[in-house]
Amino acid sequence: MSLADLLLGRPLATEEEKAERIGPGQGIPIFGLDALSSAAYGPEAALTLLIPLGMAGIAYIWPISLSIVALLAIVYFSYRQTIVAYPQGGGSYTVASENLGEWTGLLAAAALMVDYILTAAVGISAGVGALVSAVPSLQSHTLVICLGILATLTLVNLRGIRETGALFLVPTYLFIACLLGMIAIGLVKTIAASGHPVPVVAPPKLMSASAGLGAWLLLRAFASGCTAMTGVEAVSNGVMAFKEPTDKYARLTLTIIIGILMVMLAGIAYLAPVYGVGATTPGEQGYQSVLSQLLAAITGKGAFYWVGIGSILVVLSLSANTAFADFPRLSRAIALNGFLPHPLTLRGRRLVFAEGVYALAILTAILLTIFGGVTDRLIPLYAVGAFLAFTLSQAGMVVHWRRTGGAGAAKSMFLNGLGAIATAITVAVVLVAKFTQGAWITLVLIPGLIVLMRSVKRHYKKVERQTRKDTGVSTHDLSSPIVLLPIEHWSVVSEKALRFAWNMSDEIQILHVECGEETESLCQQWAQLVETPAKNAGLPVPELVLLKSPYRFVVRPIVDYALRLERENPGRHVAVLVPELVEKRWYYILLHNNRSSALKALLLVRGNERITVINIPWYLRH
Amino acid sequence: MSLADLLLGRPLATEEEKAERIGPGQGIPIFGLDALSSAAYGPEAALTLLIPLGMAGIAYIWPISLSIVALLAIVYFSYRQTIVAYPQGGGSYTVASENLGEWTGLLAAAALMVDYILTAAVGISAGVGALVSAVPSLQSHTLVICLGILATLTLVNLRGIRETGALFLVPTYLFIACLLGMIAIGLVKTIAASGHPVPVVAPPKLMSASAGLGAWLLLRAFASGCTAMTGVEAVSNGVMAFKEPTDKYARLTLTIIIGILMVMLAGIAYLAPVYGVGATTPGEQGYQSVLSQLLAAITGKGAFYWVGIGSILVVLSLSANTAFADFPRLSRAIALNGFLPHPLTLRGRRLVFAEGVYALAILTAILLTIFGGVTDRLIPLYAVGAFLAFTLSQAGMVVHWRRTGGAGAAKSMFLNGLGAIATAITVAVVLVAKFTQGAWITLVLIPGLIVLMRSVKRHYKKVERQTRKDTGVSTHDLSSPIVLLPIEHWSVVSEKALRFAWNMSDEIQILHVECGEETESLCQQWAQLVETPAKNAGLPVPELVLLKSPYRFVVRPIVDYALRLERENPGRHVAVLVPELVEKRWYYILLHNNRSSALKALLLVRGNERITVINIPWYLRH
Repeated sequence: MSLADLLLGRPLATEEEKAERIGPGQGIPIFGLDALSSAAYGPEAALTLLIPLGMAGIAYIWPISLSIVALLAIVYFSYRQTIVAYPQGGGSYTVASENLGEWTGLLAAAALMVDYILTAAVGISAGVGALVSAVPSLQSHTLVICLGILATLTLVNLRGIRETGALFLVPTYLFIACLLGMIAIGLVKTIAASGHPVPVVAPPKLMSASAGLGAWLLLRAFASGCTAMTGVEAVSNGVMAFKEPTDKYARLTLTIIIGILMVMLAGIAYLAPVYGVGATTPGEQGYQSVLSQLLAAITGKGAFYWVGIGSILVVLSLSANTAFADFPRLSRAIALNGFLPHPLTLRGRRLVFAEGVYALAILTAILLTIFGGVTDRLIPLYAVGAFLAFTLSQAGMVVHWRRTGGAGAAKSMFLNGLGAIATAITVAVVLVAKFTQGAWITLVLIPGLIVLMRSVKRHYKKVERQTRKDTGVSTHDLSSPIVLLPIEHWSVVSEKALRFAWNMSDEIQILHVECGEETESLCQQWAQLVETPAKNAGLPVPELVLLKSPYRFVVRPIVDYALRLERENPGRHVAVLVPELVEKRWYYILLHNNRSSALKALLLVRGNERITVINIPWYLRH
Repeated sequence: MSLADLLLGRPLATEEEKAERIGPGQGIPIFGLDALSSAAYGPEAALTLLIPLGMAGIAYIWPISLSIVALLAIVYFSYRQTIVAYPQGGGSYTVASENLGEWTGLLAAAALMVDYILTAAVGISAGVGALVSAVPSLQSHTLVICLGILATLTLVNLRGIRETGALFLVPTYLFIACLLGMIAIGLVKTIAASGHPVPVVAPPKLMSASAGLGAWLLLRAFASGCTAMTGVEAVSNGVMAFKEPTDKYARLTLTIIIGILMVMLAGIAYLAPVYGVGATTPGEQGYQSVLSQLLAAITGKGAFYWVGIGSILVVLSLSANTAFADFPRLSRAIALNGFLPHPLTLRGRRLVFAEGVYALAILTAILLTIFGGVTDRLIPLYAVGAFLAFTLSQAGMVVHWRRTGGAGAAKSMFLNGLGAIATAITVAVVLVAKFTQGAWITLVLIPGLIVLMRSVKRHYKKVERQTRKDTGVSTHDLSSPIVLLPIEHWSVVSEKALRFAWNMSDEIQILHVECGEETESLCQQWAQLVETPAKNAGLPVPELVLLKSPYRFVVRPIVDYALRLERENPGRHVAVLVPELVEKRWYYILLHNNRSSALKALLLVRGNERITVINIPWYLRH
């Protein structure tokens, strides 16, 4: 296991779990990367829709961003309360299923799962996209690079949450420092210039207005800008990862993440019109991201600019990691309720929910492979999942407050109700605006996932029903089995199996499939090899049963015989002893006919409760 | 099994084997395709080397071809005698190993195996190459088409020898008729024109001489022309496939194949200079194959021409099938001597040696995949394998005659000796002339195969030595095993396993890996569930053993415990009962943690003779 130790680190004991827990310092990179990095594309998405309004359009980014910040504040208060109410984690899924019922919970679960898979795929391909546009010769390797990064993220996350947090510490704080620094410098310059600062590097000229202002346009710009809010959910799912007192540290982490994000959004929205920065059309010549223009306008294209651009790229591509931090916790919460496979609830060697990490890695790899590593067009649809989860979470909190009541409940209910309505509207706007661009996929995936989860639950219920046993062991009708022992020729392996059989039963049948010479010599020697020694020792004499096989099948006649014997002897068990030559070097498997494996497999598939397979191994020495 | 029936035909009983045997009518397509089709490239290969001699060069094709025909006659007589001497089949391999010893036999075996794999790969890619040059849009699908044809050939051959023969009947005889017809018409026209016929379509003008005549050039032309002799071996390996009297029908088939091939070679060699037909440079513009030129010159570009060209293409691409007919028989002969895996000796559902067909298909697929379906450059090296086999076969026959003696032995010895020397020279010439073009691969592959075959034999000897048992079963020290039963929680499955255990032993230990709540509830209920019922029934009370697992591994502590118990109780067997929930739908495998499979596998790998695994299946009902 030294390779596993090397790759994944030594196994951690269950008692070490507390030591693996984190504080806000590591919590921000782990649970905040996705939320914080969305400051890099949220305002840009809104401004892109304002392009047709020309110079006049960019002024609207301020009210739009303020609405988003307000919505963010509502969502923040909601999740803050969720953390206290549900310290075991679970976020939207837990809130929705506990307050709005199983179906709504599954809807939230499905929405979040889709959201996380998309976060991972889109995050990785965005990072690789930036890399590839810088180094065009890598273009043809896009998918391989994507899968390589995915594998690295998987490995890092399997090593445990503390190591992941440590790894992402530097780029995350560098990104935060650069963006807050830029905003601070911009504000100082603006105040110094009485509101009219001169850009160090002038942003590209904006196009003249080609369309008039309309409510639908503003609504769409708002909906697009809302992508800045994705990832806010993360902390509430991961409460259990924090040090004691968990809810305090989780809330603190959430507060810091949302606080920084609000400052970033507001700062960008305020400075963009001041410096005359608008969006340029993506994919066309002369395209430059809003943050790049703003950085250049405020600080010039010096070291600060390049460090800032670099940290933005790194953080964008690492934002996929938030999915790795949260998806396993979410799927564990769902699996604990029986709606996803049980193994998702198990902690792996490094205390992370390893099966969830694998599941996310596999699903993301499938998505990346289908889209060849270019998942840009999936961006619109992952806002749907996130906002559906927000809506259900807020609605759940409304019910929660109505149920618990108490001081301030009415106010909280109002806030959460407002949030639910606002986020529901956003879902509707995004769905309508982006329906043909891919949002319809969500409408297929989410119900599909719900059906899947319900059938998993149904299956577990069936197993539970069929295997449940509350009473003590029954001691009636204990009868020894009829033992069948298939042999090809007499050898030490068959001798060992026969000796084992004598321990189990008085009724032993040796099965031999007829095959010419070997059969003759076996029959001739039978008395001397088995019958006489058995009689002499006073042991039951095994019966030699010759099976005909006109079509030269060897395994099938044995299985057929066992099944017939079981039918003809109701109430008796049939035990099939399978002697097996074990070779510890894998390639020797080609040298033997592997009939014992085939026999075991076929008996398991075609058999029933009264047929038991007993493997008698014989080991080759070297 | 209805899909298998549909694809492969109903299983044939062993008694039907005689009915599956064939006569010369089907023997010629099955065993002659490779030999006959080589008339299409042998003379061409010799003429290609004569290009530098210009017009004067093509006259040399006549003496070169006569030498090849003479060599063919010697090889023919040799194989004719081999068929009589070795009616069980085996060809060069059998002759060489029986007369020249094991090492030489293995050398022949390796040479022939390489030859057959190359025949299959080169045949298929030659056919696909012709198809692709006719329909260039298929170019990018070359490999897929090659693998498709390979799969079809595999399937056809798995259906049995009679069906294969029937399928290849028409193209083979069409090819023979066209070539013999062309030669007949050409001869009549030549005689009518007193040796100077006028070509219907004039062949391309030959280049003027650019090099002088030399012995090395003629030797290389001879060596290249010798590729016309590949495939001659086939019948001698397949004697057993013929009707009774097998040797008579096999000899008749060989005689017809070689007779037709000689007529073709001589006819082409005579007519080419008469009609002024020489080779054109392959791969250059204006390239036209010798047979195409000759057909056009003799019969014009009418229906006869196109039918002829079509049948040549079909036969070339089907020539790969000879490998499928012979390789399984050859590998069976080798496996019977213990140098290849035993399963190669078994007849499949349609009485063919199915494992050999699979082995050839897999090896050919690997070769085709490595070379992307373009195996032209492998052509030189497959003459090496064939001629090495010829040489060893002839040399073996020399020894054979010296041993048996009798009338005519001296003459036969002389003929075979001459043949051995001639074919040995050919091997040397081909090796030297084509060494850097790929013939060196043979020098790596053949010794590699020999080493492999010897290690297979060594392995079988070891197994035989270790498992051999000539004496009767020992009845001493029969003691019941210590039974271990791992359970997660109490259920009908564990109840069934415990009841089974009581049948086997008085010493039962229930293993439970500690895991919090479940452990507590199991311990609390233990007395009520197991102890009290056992005591009341007078059965041995199983011991509950709790295993600690600080790292949450479940399978490993159980395996470690079983191994320790086995060490501490020398002479006792340890039987591990593995309860397993069996789901007949494969996808349910994802829903359970598959610990029982992991436990079985790990016990088998880490265990030893005194550890036995007993699988107690429990089937889910739907």
